[in-house]
Amino acid sequence: MTDRFHVTYRIRAGSLPEAEGRAVEIALEQTVEVPRDVVPKGYVEDVILGRVEAVEVAGGGVYAARIGYHPDTVGHSLPQMLNVILGNSSLQQGIRVTALDLGATMQARFPGARFGVAGIRRLTGRPRAGHLCPVLKPMGRSIADLAVLAATAVLAGADIIKEDHGLADQPAHPFRDRVPAIAEAVARANAQRRDGTRALYFPNLGGPAPDLVEAAHRAKAAGADGLLVIPGLQGFDAMAGLARDTGLPVMAHPAFLGAHVLSPDTGFSHGMMFGTLMRLAGADISVFPNHGGRFAFSPGQCDEIVAACRAGAPGMAILPSPGGGMTPERMPDLARAYGPETVYLLGGSLLRSGVELASVISRLRDVLDHASEE
Amino acid sequence: MTDRFHVTYRIRAGSLPEAEGRAVEIALEQTVEVPRDVVPKGYVEDVILGRVEAVEVAGGGVYAARIGYHPDTVGHSLPQMLNVILGNSSLQQGIRVTALDLGATMQARFPGARFGVAGIRRLTGRPRAGHLCPVLKPMGRSIADLAVLAATAVLAGADIIKEDHGLADQPAHPFRDRVPAIAEAVARANAQRRDGTRALYFPNLGGPAPDLVEAAHRAKAAGADGLLVIPGLQGFDAMAGLARDTGLPVMAHPAFLGAHVLSPDTGFSHGMMFGTLMRLAGADISVFPNHGGRFAFSPGQCDEIVAACRAGAPGMAILPSPGGGMTPERMPDLARAYGPETVYLLGGSLLRSGVELASVISRLRDVLDHASEE
Repeated sequence: MTDRFHVTYRIRAGSLPEAEGRAVEIALEQTVEVPRDVVPKGYVEDVILGRVEAVEVAGGGVYAARIGYHPDTVGHSLPQMLNVILGNSSLQQGIRVTALDLGATMQARFPGARFGVAGIRRLTGRPRAGHLCPVLKPMGRSIADLAVLAATAVLAGADIIKEDHGLADQPAHPFRDRVPAIAEAVARANAQRRDGTRALYFPNLGGPAPDLVEAAHRAKAAGADGLLVIPGLQGFDAMAGLARDTGLPVMAHPAFLGAHVLSPDTGFSHGMMFGTLMRLAGADISVFPNHGGRFAFSPGQCDEIVAACRAGAPGMAILPSPGGGMTPERMPDLARAYGPETVYLLGGSLLRSGVELASVISRLRDVLDHASEE
Repeated sequence: MTDRFHVTYRIRAGSLPEAEGRAVEIALEQTVEVPRDVVPKGYVEDVILGRVEAVEVAGGGVYAARIGYHPDTVGHSLPQMLNVILGNSSLQQGIRVTALDLGATMQARFPGARFGVAGIRRLTGRPRAGHLCPVLKPMGRSIADLAVLAATAVLAGADIIKEDHGLADQPAHPFRDRVPAIAEAVARANAQRRDGTRALYFPNLGGPAPDLVEAAHRAKAAGADGLLVIPGLQGFDAMAGLARDTGLPVMAHPAFLGAHVLSPDTGFSHGMMFGTLMRLAGADISVFPNHGGRFAFSPGQCDEIVAACRAGAPGMAILPSPGGGMTPERMPDLARAYGPETVYLLGGSLLRSGVELASVISRLRDVLDHASEE
């Protein structure tokens, strides 16, 4: 028998009966999208119609409703999966998705990450310590400058060289010229590392959609080790497709997704959006704005993201990647808080270091290595 | 000289100086993404860095900041354009985009809709009256049933036959079989219309990303007249690409986009999301949930969407398409309120009519025809 997948909605309502009524409306809206009295008997009512399985009081005018959906409502399409989870209901106030339980049938259809924590560790050759990921910021640099910056970071012990998500295909840094130049610089620097580790280069795929797959294949041919994708802009399914199609690991960037989590009453919980949905769509690494920087996430919300990245499902565990306003000074505390199964992002703050870049990275490398030995 | 494009942000702040400070942070975040003191002199500071051009008190703790961005920050990529408009800043509280002024350079790069109001009217052969758009709901119907339903609606005077956005590629209605069957039924029924008008069939492209363009071409070859796309799920750029690539008109569905507008302090204003951004991404028709139905939009928010669809830019004016819980009884009032440059969506409520479907559509057709003659 085909098992259903289950979505938990946080519903704001004035009473339990009102919350139960809203849950029934969600089950209708997300599947048959017609009033209850015109739902046909038989297959549609028994299989297609969402099933409200529980509505519980969560306190503070908020209720938790668990709704089961049959895989037949989705087929094999990820956009349609997201559509059933929160398509039209995203347009209603007071409904927020807080959990997803795939079940065996949908887990088989959406197997998730292809690399995950273990796969990325295999590629970097770093079995235990946290990963260090400086970001290549364009900032008045030529492509040659960026290549030198990347090589410097690799020689100093970085694990992943991530391009800034704003590096698309602008006049100053065309994708076609930039990626081969940086990939080559990273490869040369990698050849000088003698400890069995290797840095991975993740260029940003900022180009237009019809060229996205082609650009990804060009990047792979030029020596890229992974891809930075922005699912909020390019689509979750495009990310899943790029991972499948290129066979490269994928790092997901959170740009444009903020509104889905910032209001407590709509969209998705932080863990759902930056953990569960990223895993569902095949990401191996999920970037999110760390607390204490210039973004609005709280420590608790960041912990929720990390827990969702490392939870038992969907698919294998992936690496959370806190970033945004992180400084070298904060690294010891962060390494203790987030632990070694983490990709630590270092962006604009590193630019302050100037010529000290190499020594800053070496120092951070030491912090992460020692933290994992404690 | 290249002219900048301008974005207006609604900023929540405790004072005008605080709002000015936040505006400077947005200009940094959306372009150089480093602290102000490390922005290099010359090209980066003069061209790439966003320029705060005005910050004004809007009342109620809210301020309006107008920021100018150079086209070099974007290049020709729509994802990167959206990234500059509200990428990382979407992750911060109290920032909402309320207006976009493209300027000549970006208008040339993003020309918008290919059909718009005039083009759709040319295709339907209906020069003045409002357009009527019944939605094909799967609901216990076989593909043959859906084809009969479509033909019935066409014979009764519908202008656009839109598939439900939940019709993807599920077992009961595979895309490959469904689209040719319905397209043929619509074509046969069109051949019997004698008044020079013609109904257009818009199938839903629910499939996975790598097949999206292929599916669109298959649909076109099978006789589809347009495409229903869900930019919240498939990406705004995928929509733009499909419009460009197939040459078919595109109808945008709002599923999954709710969180971008529902909180007044984050995301986009209703007009920006369901008017301006849809136009920027090449939609010819923009579906939105009408007030008074089961969704949360107010009459004022709906008016804002309609105004943004019909405004002078970007590109040519497009057709707003209110839907969701609309009943035949409301149509006379709606026709007066929204006027003839509108696609009126009719979904689940029509199913209540059962065998009366044809007469209900004929009656609504009369309402719209008379409204446009008044």
